[in-house]
Amino acid sequence: MTTEALRGKNHPQRLSEYPKTPVLTTDESVIAIPSISNSGNRRAADREGNQMQTIERYLEDFEVGQRFSSAKLRVEKEQIKSFAAEFDPQPFHLDDDAARNTMFGGLAASGWHTAAITMKLLVESDLKPAGGIVGAGFDQLRWPLPVRPGDELRVESEILNVRTSKSHPQQGLIKVRTTTLNQNDEPVQVAVGNLVVPRKAKALRSENS
Amino acid sequence: MTTEALRGKNHPQRLSEYPKTPVLTTDESVIAIPSISNSGNRRAADREGNQMQTIERYLEDFEVGQRFSSAKLRVEKEQIKSFAAEFDPQPFHLDDDAARNTMFGGLAASGWHTAAITMKLLVESDLKPAGGIVGAGFDQLRWPLPVRPGDELRVESEILNVRTSKSHPQQGLIKVRTTTLNQNDEPVQVAVGNLVVPRKAKALRSENS
Repeated sequence: MTTEALRGKNHPQRLSEYPKTPVLTTDESVIAIPSISNSGNRRAADREGNQMQTIERYLEDFEVGQRFSSAKLRVEKEQIKSFAAEFDPQPFHLDDDAARNTMFGGLAASGWHTAAITMKLLVESDLKPAGGIVGAGFDQLRWPLPVRPGDELRVESEILNVRTSKSHPQQGLIKVRTTTLNQNDEPVQVAVGNLVVPRKAKALRSENS
Repeated sequence: MTTEALRGKNHPQRLSEYPKTPVLTTDESVIAIPSISNSGNRRAADREGNQMQTIERYLEDFEVGQRFSSAKLRVEKEQIKSFAAEFDPQPFHLDDDAARNTMFGGLAASGWHTAAITMKLLVESDLKPAGGIVGAGFDQLRWPLPVRPGDELRVESEILNVRTSKSHPQQGLIKVRTTTLNQNDEPVQVAVGNLVVPRKAKALRSENS
């Protein structure tokens, strides 16, 4: 299922992007969801029962050291300029000639454009927290190299830490380092963020019994 | 001068967005720039000599505790959805009905959309580093509350630290906390970042003499 399907109200939504724990949602009328007591990673199915490529993960499914990869995405010059015109209107992001006379030495994507592209690649990657990718915040975000027109970006992510929440025992946090690389395998963005991930109902029940 | 003027190749560029120190640019043929030995804050002028509202600041012009404010910007529902469709295609950012059954409890802007809007407000605010707003990276980025359709955002920034660069003596870094607030003065984003700012040539010369 492509992201196109997510845009229309009448299309089935990607199951992995729905929270499944009681705290997050109890309304099963919107979409048929599997039992929340399912254990282990599993492949989701759409309403017609077709198996999808998506594997969704609860907190217990994440381990320090796990790595996930994304597809690639080429960044076009016109995209760099149009993002900048809307959100970061500075000469080095807007205009080839003007950019040559700045510290960038040529047109470069806004760091926020790189961050947004990274998010897109991450959402479509095999890192699939149940409930979607919900960031609690970042400990670090830096752009070691500018992104240039025609660059082809991909994202490598690695789990650095997994912990349950003391204040919200039905969920936890995973610390993830995402490294965005260009076609020469040079990092153009490194971010360390914390994502909110629901726990399995089974794990919660065994704690309470 | 509005950002519109920055988009066309044949329009004069905003002076404050050009680096003025020798290390950053020496090509004065592109735009008439004032002497780099000017001291203190000053108002820039365009090619016709019209005074503009812009005050540009070199490293020496920044002090810990200085605060800067932005204008306000209203975030429309369709903008939230179109940003999400392009960069963060998850149900809670894309579709009102689907969003109700997620942990967001309703449509919310992608955090990266909030970050991009913050950048736009910052670029147009009275924080005007000479050479433009160039981020070296962030120590912290978090979203305490979601941004909802119709929210009106503004940015308050505060200088936390000012230091010269050891490896690049012609420039320095300012540490800035930017707080993005909604119409109820609730923070929706807090970011602590480091910006690269050129030093005045005068300050450099006196060190070398």
